[in-house]
Amino acid sequence: MNKKSFPLAKVYTLLETGPVVLISTSRKGIANIMTQSWHTMMEFEPPLVGCVISARNHSFDALKSTKECVINIPTVELAKQVVAIGNCSGRKVDKFARTGLTPVRASLVQAPMIMECYANLECRVADTRLVNSYNFFVLEVVKAWIVPAVKAPKTLHHRGKGEFMVAGDTVKLPSRMK
Amino acid sequence: MNKKSFPLAKVYTLLETGPVVLISTSRKGIANIMTQSWHTMMEFEPPLVGCVISARNHSFDALKSTKECVINIPTVELAKQVVAIGNCSGRKVDKFARTGLTPVRASLVQAPMIMECYANLECRVADTRLVNSYNFFVLEVVKAWIVPAVKAPKTLHHRGKGEFMVAGDTVKLPSRMK
Repeated sequence: MNKKSFPLAKVYTLLETGPVVLISTSRKGIANIMTQSWHTMMEFEPPLVGCVISARNHSFDALKSTKECVINIPTVELAKQVVAIGNCSGRKVDKFARTGLTPVRASLVQAPMIMECYANLECRVADTRLVNSYNFFVLEVVKAWIVPAVKAPKTLHHRGKGEFMVAGDTVKLPSRMK
Repeated sequence: MNKKSFPLAKVYTLLETGPVVLISTSRKGIANIMTQSWHTMMEFEPPLVGCVISARNHSFDALKSTKECVINIPTVELAKQVVAIGNCSGRKVDKFARTGLTPVRASLVQAPMIMECYANLECRVADTRLVNSYNFFVLEVVKAWIVPAVKAPKTLHHRGKGEFMVAGDTVKLPSRMK
């Protein structure tokens, strides 16, 4: 895999823009993937990510029982797979087989990383207090991987119903913000 | 104001892409604004938005005591103001005066809306269970306003340290996702 370890303190730079992500899980040896946009950074370091995984999703049970997942960040080249994954259920379909995406062993969690995504964040569940009310999990990123060559990733940002904004130009302004 | 009421059921289409937002508050008649990227949708309808407001921010106290705010969504034309707001504190500075942005009376909350932003979401605090641990507020959007002419807003998406990705092209794929 053409990826390198990425500093945990910089994980927020990958997620703060609000990209569509693919969340992979593994339960009893069966891997699954879901498409997800409802996530937010909650702390810089250790990086905490809050995300809503609907109880209607097959991934909900896997995450609740294994307490592990990988957040994979795709770019526009994977748009078809992103939509295909969002339109079928892991109850019925092997999503890796269906989409041709490649599972790669992670270093600290059982859930597989998706090779074709430019960044992979290995996560453990850190807080479940809002799971019953909102299906909201707080995840801690315990290990991060990135393709170092990708500087301005063409991430996807869902506007609803299969319409995506693709990451455009970069502007940089003098700022003391982190 | 050239804005129209926007259906609450569609609010997720405005926030799901992860734009930088300006959160306005009002406490004891004094308005304030903060720049914010750490937010996520949590429910479609009524729309719930989770967001982290650091206790270091002056806005934290206003939100905690008044339980009201407005989420304003700026576009790239406001990039300088977005950064300026993120680089000073409401403890010392009147941010409306400093940036020249225009406060407009909201319909259901005391916090002002920012006229120059293409969308404004009037919010009330709905859940504070994770405030002590993570400064994480669950907000309910009680009224939404939008400039109807803006179809593909050039929103800003923070990559950290004043570097922003600007919303680029739109791609649409057949999908059954909401």
